[in-house]
Amino acid sequence: MDRPFVDLGFARVDTDREARQGAPEAIFAEGKTPDEIAGIARTLLEGGASSVLLTRADDEARAALRAVAPDTQEDVRARLAWVARDTPEPRGTVTIVSGGTSDEPAVREAEVRAQLLGTTVIVHRDAGVAGLHRLEPALEDLRSADCVVVVAGWDAALASVVGGLVAAPVIGVPTSTGYGATFGGVSALLAMMTSCAAGVAVVNIDDGFGAGTIAARIARRAA
Amino acid sequence: MDRPFVDLGFARVDTDREARQGAPEAIFAEGKTPDEIAGIARTLLEGGASSVLLTRADDEARAALRAVAPDTQEDVRARLAWVARDTPEPRGTVTIVSGGTSDEPAVREAEVRAQLLGTTVIVHRDAGVAGLHRLEPALEDLRSADCVVVVAGWDAALASVVGGLVAAPVIGVPTSTGYGATFGGVSALLAMMTSCAAGVAVVNIDDGFGAGTIAARIARRAA
Amino acid sequence: MDRPFVDLGFARVDTDREARQGAPEAIFAEGKTPDEIAGIARTLLEGGASSVLLTRADDEARAALRAVAPDTQEDVRARLAWVARDTPEPRGTVTIVSGGTSDEPAVREAEVRAQLLGTTVIVHRDAGVAGLHRLEPALEDLRSADCVVVVAGWDAALASVVGGLVAAPVIGVPTSTGYGATFGGVSALLAMMTSCAAGVAVVNIDDGFGAGTIAARIARRAA
Amino acid sequence: MDRPFVDLGFARVDTDREARQGAPEAIFAEGKTPDEIAGIARTLLEGGASSVLLTRADDEARAALRAVAPDTQEDVRARLAWVARDTPEPRGTVTIVSGGTSDEPAVREAEVRAQLLGTTVIVHRDAGVAGLHRLEPALEDLRSADCVVVVAGWDAALASVVGGLVAAPVIGVPTSTGYGATFGGVSALLAMMTSCAAGVAVVNIDDGFGAGTIAARIARRAA
Amino acid sequence: MDRPFVDLGFARVDTDREARQGAPEAIFAEGKTPDEIAGIARTLLEGGASSVLLTRADDEARAALRAVAPDTQEDVRARLAWVARDTPEPRGTVTIVSGGTSDEPAVREAEVRAQLLGTTVIVHRDAGVAGLHRLEPALEDLRSADCVVVVAGWDAALASVVGGLVAAPVIGVPTSTGYGATFGGVSALLAMMTSCAAGVAVVNIDDGFGAGTIAARIARRAA
Amino acid sequence: MDRPFVDLGFARVDTDREARQGAPEAIFAEGKTPDEIAGIARTLLEGGASSVLLTRADDEARAALRAVAPDTQEDVRARLAWVARDTPEPRGTVTIVSGGTSDEPAVREAEVRAQLLGTTVIVHRDAGVAGLHRLEPALEDLRSADCVVVVAGWDAALASVVGGLVAAPVIGVPTSTGYGATFGGVSALLAMMTSCAAGVAVVNIDDGFGAGTIAARIARRAA
Amino acid sequence: MDRPFVDLGFARVDTDREARQGAPEAIFAEGKTPDEIAGIARTLLEGGASSVLLTRADDEARAALRAVAPDTQEDVRARLAWVARDTPEPRGTVTIVSGGTSDEPAVREAEVRAQLLGTTVIVHRDAGVAGLHRLEPALEDLRSADCVVVVAGWDAALASVVGGLVAAPVIGVPTSTGYGATFGGVSALLAMMTSCAAGVAVVNIDDGFGAGTIAARIARRAA
Amino acid sequence: MDRPFVDLGFARVDTDREARQGAPEAIFAEGKTPDEIAGIARTLLEGGASSVLLTRADDEARAALRAVAPDTQEDVRARLAWVARDTPEPRGTVTIVSGGTSDEPAVREAEVRAQLLGTTVIVHRDAGVAGLHRLEPALEDLRSADCVVVVAGWDAALASVVGGLVAAPVIGVPTSTGYGATFGGVSALLAMMTSCAAGVAVVNIDDGFGAGTIAARIARRAA
Repeated sequence: MDRPFVDLGFARVDTDREARQGAPEAIFAEGKTPDEIAGIARTLLEGGASSVLLTRADDEARAALRAVAPDTQEDVRARLAWVARDTPEPRGTVTIVSGGTSDEPAVREAEVRAQLLGTTVIVHRDAGVAGLHRLEPALEDLRSADCVVVVAGWDAALASVVGGLVAAPVIGVPTSTGYGATFGGVSALLAMMTSCAAGVAVVNIDDGFGAGTIAARIARRAA
Repeated sequence: MDRPFVDLGFARVDTDREARQGAPEAIFAEGKTPDEIAGIARTLLEGGASSVLLTRADDEARAALRAVAPDTQEDVRARLAWVARDTPEPRGTVTIVSGGTSDEPAVREAEVRAQLLGTTVIVHRDAGVAGLHRLEPALEDLRSADCVVVVAGWDAALASVVGGLVAAPVIGVPTSTGYGATFGGVSALLAMMTSCAAGVAVVNIDDGFGAGTIAARIARRAA
Repeated sequence: MDRPFVDLGFARVDTDREARQGAPEAIFAEGKTPDEIAGIARTLLEGGASSVLLTRADDEARAALRAVAPDTQEDVRARLAWVARDTPEPRGTVTIVSGGTSDEPAVREAEVRAQLLGTTVIVHRDAGVAGLHRLEPALEDLRSADCVVVVAGWDAALASVVGGLVAAPVIGVPTSTGYGATFGGVSALLAMMTSCAAGVAVVNIDDGFGAGTIAARIARRAA
Repeated sequence: MDRPFVDLGFARVDTDREARQGAPEAIFAEGKTPDEIAGIARTLLEGGASSVLLTRADDEARAALRAVAPDTQEDVRARLAWVARDTPEPRGTVTIVSGGTSDEPAVREAEVRAQLLGTTVIVHRDAGVAGLHRLEPALEDLRSADCVVVVAGWDAALASVVGGLVAAPVIGVPTSTGYGATFGGVSALLAMMTSCAAGVAVVNIDDGFGAGTIAARIARRAA
Repeated sequence: MDRPFVDLGFARVDTDREARQGAPEAIFAEGKTPDEIAGIARTLLEGGASSVLLTRADDEARAALRAVAPDTQEDVRARLAWVARDTPEPRGTVTIVSGGTSDEPAVREAEVRAQLLGTTVIVHRDAGVAGLHRLEPALEDLRSADCVVVVAGWDAALASVVGGLVAAPVIGVPTSTGYGATFGGVSALLAMMTSCAAGVAVVNIDDGFGAGTIAARIARRAA
Repeated sequence: MDRPFVDLGFARVDTDREARQGAPEAIFAEGKTPDEIAGIARTLLEGGASSVLLTRADDEARAALRAVAPDTQEDVRARLAWVARDTPEPRGTVTIVSGGTSDEPAVREAEVRAQLLGTTVIVHRDAGVAGLHRLEPALEDLRSADCVVVVAGWDAALASVVGGLVAAPVIGVPTSTGYGATFGGVSALLAMMTSCAAGVAVVNIDDGFGAGTIAARIARRAA
Repeated sequence: MDRPFVDLGFARVDTDREARQGAPEAIFAEGKTPDEIAGIARTLLEGGASSVLLTRADDEARAALRAVAPDTQEDVRARLAWVARDTPEPRGTVTIVSGGTSDEPAVREAEVRAQLLGTTVIVHRDAGVAGLHRLEPALEDLRSADCVVVVAGWDAALASVVGGLVAAPVIGVPTSTGYGATFGGVSALLAMMTSCAAGVAVVNIDDGFGAGTIAARIARRAA
Repeated sequence: MDRPFVDLGFARVDTDREARQGAPEAIFAEGKTPDEIAGIARTLLEGGASSVLLTRADDEARAALRAVAPDTQEDVRARLAWVARDTPEPRGTVTIVSGGTSDEPAVREAEVRAQLLGTTVIVHRDAGVAGLHRLEPALEDLRSADCVVVVAGWDAALASVVGGLVAAPVIGVPTSTGYGATFGGVSALLAMMTSCAAGVAVVNIDDGFGAGTIAARIARRAA
């Protein structure tokens, strides 16, 4: 187990992760001070990370990253900021399909993460089951993808529909879109988890980051 | 509130219900002794009920009904027994579509109840979303129905798919089919309840009886 | 499945829905930017929608609709805005009864939706079970309705009381009214779902919109 | 705190309880061997208990009590056995009303316990809300009671209806009657707990014993 | 059922409740506008209510009551306002004991309600089980009470301790005091509900109002 | 959507699935009669399925498959039976690691399914975190795998440990192994779902079948 | 991490655990075949384990251990079997106190485990809060203990009472004793977890084994 | 039970606690006014408390303590304030290890409490399982500790990893770090509770205070 990391006191930055797992450590902003975020980001960049991705980041958190790296890019709605330094050549294709416009933050998190890890990403938005014919323009991209990501809230029925149509591995991202008995994404999570289509695996609620990570791994290997 | 009922001591049989609501009281067998079942059934029949329906009935319970009425019919798998005496002329059509073969008990409960209340019932079985093309032969019957009943377990995605295709009212019956995170039908219930298709209303888990009741009311009025 | 829709990039507007299902697509405001709301509304109106209904809409969202259509109407408390252009001639009657004054937003959502879809709506407010005699003035309207909608929070006992009195189909809307063990409407949802009166079907917590949709479908067919 | 009890090794029998609280310790049979039950019962009787009540008792457990006391009485369905030795003169009246025939075990547990503690008990069975007129014959007994106990499963709407009619304290006993989303009595418990009628207090699911205990305390003091 | 009420459109004020149940209707402020609160309060006072109690009331809501009745009294921390006009002569004693200082709002709600309904109320605060000897000064008042109310958050162990010491009926009020696995009062509710002491009945989380109502009923009858 | 299937009345067998998705329909035995199982299996085999897999199958169910196909293989403990007819040449490697001996049924379900779909499967059993050094012999196979499947009950900590070591996609299978607060696999599911290692996706509790399906898809594409 | 273990194929027996952690690996019987149990037990004994403890063991499982070691001891009610070979000299004292007779299986599991790990164990049974004076004879042993274990079901109020009296560390074992809203031990777990007494830590429901393990570690170090 | 306390009306300050249990009463700030906090703190200090610890304290609450004691120390992020007057000589060592930077508030609560009670505390931060090699620098301190505290959110896999490595007692503190299916710390709590490593006991979510209390008791006795 003696692999490198940098101990900042408040954090032990895993500078070995990219070598070990092909994906650099990302920074989850909630519960961290701007100084801590800056310190971790600087350490990752100095350690040669191909990219740094900051998730769940409010204005202050994103500013902390910008201060460290002027080439920081941002997506305010998705609460993301990232620095792309030496990202791998894209290999493989991930097709993301979302149920509705309100699922956008999770879509973006998955998209940015998968791109930073070196894949081509295609997105089809608002193709929910209530108007199933809207899925048709996505079919070709779904069938040719190396990995499919379905992002949906409410009852997340889209996961089963897509899961019954394609031959590629399908990763489901339940979102907290909805109200009442959606219970902040729990109903979508349970629905995806018990999908009547075999071969769907699921990540945490609103966890576009996790979906982007595993999708990129699958797609790059497949290409 | 002074409407008729018969007090048997252990039960107050609501012989007024059919006059008041167009559907006779049914007998839920669980927790009742065979003697109690027989007593209630006899009272209903003597009170002129058009039919008597016994649900969740084991062998002993069904035998109790047979002893009271030799014209008792039964469905062992669905744990049903019923006596059809003077059922109304069928008016209106209910189309039931189920997700899989294992949903049969709830399908049958809905079918028998809706028929006893005087509707024509059409059933399409095993048209689940994992192979969506299997729904096609049902489309015409779904579109021409006065009321649609969707019976499905697992993630119950069929409710949203059907709910996005038809103009008729849709009643969802979540079933306890499945294992693990289906939680005995809870995931299906939540999914139907939060269906991304508007206009779907839901009854209790495995409650074919309730679905048959409201579907018959809707269909008979529409015809 | 090749039916029309308009792809705005961030949304695929289902301009076919009204032809297919008799009810135009509505706009759920949460998670959408004002620009997105305006774009969808404009597309629906240009596509000939008989009405546009915007739900869960804060001030900014409602203003976006007003900017698109000067004939926008609003209900601030219910967070609604809508444009009625070419709504169908009313057919059939929906009677809504609510448990208390605090259930008003869900009542209004159901009322406006059912009216926009072309039904006559009668509302009886604050007829909760704690003072059952207050339900009496509503009885005639409940009995003559083509569809009944019960809107109630707390333990939602009103659903069973009404469900045991009327012959029409009953749609329950559990509301988040209450505190403590009401769990944001969960207790009301469970109570309605397990109503001891047969023939009650239930929509999502606070989902007046869904109730209005199915109630209008039922009532118009019955008339 | 130095009050008497008898230590049997496997149990410390609280022979002081009746003096302290006016009600002898009862024996919950589940998880106890017949020998343990016999030992506790013998100790209570020798300690001068006015009665011994054994709850949740299977055949073997009840036989153990009979072996200790030949004057044991039993109710098989309610899994009860009891010995009435020197019960107090009845004072005050408890009226129990139940929602359905299947609630009988909890009804009997409450009835026997309240009688053993010295009250007059009146029972009205199967007066559920689905046919509200069946409650009418109970109204006088409900209004004249010193304490009312409502026993109901499913959505337990009866608690709110009764709670809105009477001036006496109301104790609710949610029962596990029902299936699906009744969740073994949870929905009934939540509904009673959030009753829209003020002044209803609730005991555990199927806990007729607890209801009988508090009802007797209330009724005896009131008389 | 033809008993009086006043229909204000937005509310049907149950002016009969005090005659029927001995306690006037109270006003739950959440979800009501100041105008609605004022209207209901005025109607109750004009209808001869002995008192008006407004619960869960923010500044604006309490001001609305003050505008209607200059003799309004208030408790800001407990979010209460009330008008005492013609309250009954006190009869019977209610002893309230709380687990900690933070349970005060529920304590006050119970205290004010029980006083308005005509009982003498004694309060012992902060007698929680972590330092059990602090309960000793309360023992005499607990033993002489006609009804005991236990208000406690966290694990609410105080309910069982008190429930095992006194002969009076015990009403438990679980509070939302605590964090983490207290789940907003759910753990306290479950603990009280499953108290190992028989004869404890429970009201909703933080529902001092409900506890005060039933406690007053019990105490006044006992006196 | 006009793709082939065979309608047996009780089932619409999706004989197109293998062409469409590269994996034949499997048969979930629960809730199906032996005759239904036999009928579906025969139809699949006649339709040219490369294999037939029967899951959650008791003795009777497995006998039904044997009667249809004498070359049926079985695993009693895992409640599996299968017929391997024309399975694809193995491509790619799946490494399965389990937390304990009791997780075997889910391990076997994943192993058999992945093999039938045409992959090489390596299994390391009982490498749970309580004795982390037992994972060492698995490390090489984990690092060289095209897809890793982690099967674990209790707190499923193995998912995070493995997820932090390998570069391959990781699929988690929470199992129902354990008692008490494992809640039948819920705790394991939640733990895997919230794994602190990025890139873990999760299937249903005990769903070795689903894991085998997606793992085979990933591995075959990668090879 | 290169420490010893024995790979039996179906199990990797952690023969290093006792050296590493001072407590040998125990065998959880559920989900293991008798042959597997025998194999693991034999390996542990051959590896020099000071003791072998088999938990949750039915008749067949216990027989498997007896066949391996004729000096096997058993407790049928607690479903335990164990072989004590070379257990450490007792050091330190653990006092166990239980709420009721029905908690015995968890009491015994904790007692046997702590004894096998080398501590003196004192048990006080049935000292529940409903009759608090029954705790008095236990006070001296509680105060002199190096570690206290509280075993209780229902609302587990005993944990807070004891936790507020002693200076020693307190380990809570919630049990599944009870019915209804005890939810198989969940209410007891939540109550112990949120104990108003500081310094109580909790193990899994019915997990006497875990409590015995940590209690022995604490007590031996303290002595 | 006649031990001292001071009754302030709103609080009964348990000035005996330190004598009885070796740890002074602490003040939970939520739900208390600044005046109440000041009053309790003053009483504790006047009663000779070795320290006063105020938890969950906002700015106003901490200011109230500062006003009472100028030697107040604070940790804003952890919402702590404390006065160390006459703390015991340190005996024994507690090693705290945390999963991530965001767990800091619970880490600090445990650290400060254990120090105030008289132990030496060593902290290793951000040693989560996603990069297991970061745990290595902590191993020596973990192995030499008298008690280990593991603070972790998400799936809290660190508890099992540490619990399988050390011989000391392990106390788990699940934290609310994370989003989605972490459910505010519930997933971490369940995971720790069902840890596959024996001998881990768990305190409430984010309850560093409770962990510090029991850890200090264990460590001081061991030293």
